Amino acid sequence: MGDSVSGLAVFGSTGSIGRQTLDVVRGLRRRFRVVALSAGRNVTLLQEQAREFAPRFACYNGNGSATHDVIGLEGTECLSMEAMAAHPDVDMVVVATVGKAGLVSTLAALEAGKTVALANKEVLVMAGKLVAEAARRGRGEIRPIDSEHSAIWQCLRGEKKASIRRLILTASGGALRDKNVDELRRVTPEQALSHPTWQMGRKITVDSATLLNKGLEAIEARWLFDVPLDRIEIVLHRESIVHSLVEFTDGSLKAQIGLPDMRVPIQVALCYPDRPAMPSVQHFDLKRIGELHFAELKLDRYPCLALALEAGHREGTFPAVLSAADEVAVESFLAGRIGFMRIPEIIDDTLNSHEGVADPSLDDILAADVWAREHAEGLIGART
Amino acid sequence: MGDSVSGLAVFGSTGSIGRQTLDVVRGLRRRFRVVALSAGRNVTLLQEQAREFAPRFACYNGNGSATHDVIGLEGTECLSMEAMAAHPDVDMVVVATVGKAGLVSTLAALEAGKTVALANKEVLVMAGKLVAEAARRGRGEIRPIDSEHSAIWQCLRGEKKASIRRLILTASGGALRDKNVDELRRVTPEQALSHPTWQMGRKITVDSATLLNKGLEAIEARWLFDVPLDRIEIVLHRESIVHSLVEFTDGSLKAQIGLPDMRVPIQVALCYPDRPAMPSVQHFDLKRIGELHFAELKLDRYPCLALALEAGHREGTFPAVLSAADEVAVESFLAGRIGFMRIPEIIDDTLNSHEGVADPSLDDILAADVWAREHAEGLIGART
Repeated sequence: MGDSVSGLAVFGSTGSIGRQTLDVVRGLRRRFRVVALSAGRNVTLLQEQAREFAPRFACYNGNGSATHDVIGLEGTECLSMEAMAAHPDVDMVVVATVGKAGLVSTLAALEAGKTVALANKEVLVMAGKLVAEAARRGRGEIRPIDSEHSAIWQCLRGEKKASIRRLILTASGGALRDKNVDELRRVTPEQALSHPTWQMGRKITVDSATLLNKGLEAIEARWLFDVPLDRIEIVLHRESIVHSLVEFTDGSLKAQIGLPDMRVPIQVALCYPDRPAMPSVQHFDLKRIGELHFAELKLDRYPCLALALEAGHREGTFPAVLSAADEVAVESFLAGRIGFMRIPEIIDDTLNSHEGVADPSLDDILAADVWAREHAEGLIGART
Repeated sequence: MGDSVSGLAVFGSTGSIGRQTLDVVRGLRRRFRVVALSAGRNVTLLQEQAREFAPRFACYNGNGSATHDVIGLEGTECLSMEAMAAHPDVDMVVVATVGKAGLVSTLAALEAGKTVALANKEVLVMAGKLVAEAARRGRGEIRPIDSEHSAIWQCLRGEKKASIRRLILTASGGALRDKNVDELRRVTPEQALSHPTWQMGRKITVDSATLLNKGLEAIEARWLFDVPLDRIEIVLHRESIVHSLVEFTDGSLKAQIGLPDMRVPIQVALCYPDRPAMPSVQHFDLKRIGELHFAELKLDRYPCLALALEAGHREGTFPAVLSAADEVAVESFLAGRIGFMRIPEIIDDTLNSHEGVADPSLDDILAADVWAREHAEGLIGART
């Protein structure tokens, strides 16, 4: 990259990661120019961002042609995410969409040889193998933004792949880590949404409470770092200070550490291999942290995590079905339609009813996604 | 290095690090052949090692010509350490001597373009600038063996030098970390020798109790990583599990972690960038460690550390004087000639009486060393 300015596309620019990405970019004007913005819901914020960054392209609600009316800025062209992802003016794509929205455009970006800074879990969970193949074929590069994967990626700098013994993902335990099973039955959306260490979107915060999120991360790590799932361990770490670790074949471990602030892994992904100063990030003082705690994660306490790992092991279309069923279940929980403990039941039933496709195509995956949503909706509708 | 066999010289082969180096090499017969051994005291063990490894060269007590009588092995030539260090058959030199014994041979090895795996603190403390210059001139390479420096070195893999904000050395606090000042006055050699987390030689264990050791490590780190002393922080970490950390300019930190076992950093130095499996090293389980503690190190509790940092800041011949005065004082303490609290007094007096030489030559440094020993001995003799 050197001193030249890179063209950046930010997909999901009005969400939590998207907004923080633009915040980071404000400090990196010499390195990045925002060339494309895409958002799915918050039209007011998208308009505001478009005024500030004057992108060449914008996309609202995944629909390039509908964008012009809502953006209405001269010089801003309306394109689909897929077309933006592959456009010659775009060097790097930040995929910060939620759910399957980012999948097709991620594949397009990688096929076109772009660097994808990936914050969307579902992309790798649903189609990890296809994404890895697209990157290889198109010579695209994937850089993780998720704090855990960024940690592992940072620990692997300068190391050989053959030196990896295990990846160790840390888990805060989520909002409900101190509740007993009886209390879990009565958990309200408000309780599930109060994450102890991270400020994040609603869906991911509930996924953190069920720990399904950590299962998705294990599946992501499996594809990002090409390490089998049984060499990925999850350890309870309440403080979210040690973001994850790598254990090497010689018994040495490396960890990446810092205060929970997503702007750091975002910038790490944008600027690799450089590390420009981030004056607005609070300074981390190990002495003041005092203690760091680690403990075993009890799978029987977290049925959603066990289901996620099971789906990860079964591969094929099962991870996509897991993700879709979870999305439906979590939305229903947040809407007050079902109780917290129904989330794993719905996922379990959907996975068990699914006829998996091994080595699936993108169409197989998208069909499994649709099927799983309908199945999960059916389960919820039948009971409510 | 690839698949070829490297010729290894082990200096200080009968000491704690030397023995562990040979233990590591026993597992790496396809990578290393022990070409040279050197030891200063334990003739029986040197003979045993020479029988096992059949080195081409050996040296006893720094004196090549006196070696033949004690080794008496056909095919083993007697050479000085300096000559061994520069010999074409030697690719890598492990400098595991104590005190100034390794200095001249380290310089010779680096000038001759060898890789030096360095466990001898005094080499960089006494002559860091000369060593760095020799490495640059001769295209030699220094790899640290000390667990703290190995940790930092591992964390810096794949990172740019410009990305370093701070180096953070962890300190266990040593054998006497829980004693109050009254108790410190009455400390016996046996108490000072019972290190809470590491099994090491006697001198270094006492230096760990006074924390002078940590000051020497800061000075070493300053030269190894070319980072000013005021960007090197020391943090109390009782468990010796986090071996040290690097804080980067973007606020991210990396740590290297593991059980206290010197064979790991030794092998890391020998095999870089590879990490062959070490079956005999106990597996580290973060979940079973449970808690890690960090705290501020109070300099007023550790006068030797404050003196070491002061000498480091003054540069020139002061670090050599510090090291020499400490060696004399610690030996006298271990011999029962002086009390524990006299160690910093002797170092302080010697530093204050020294007329420093800025930008010293090797001769200046060796002269300062001799002067400091005499001065310190004089102080001890005068009072005992």
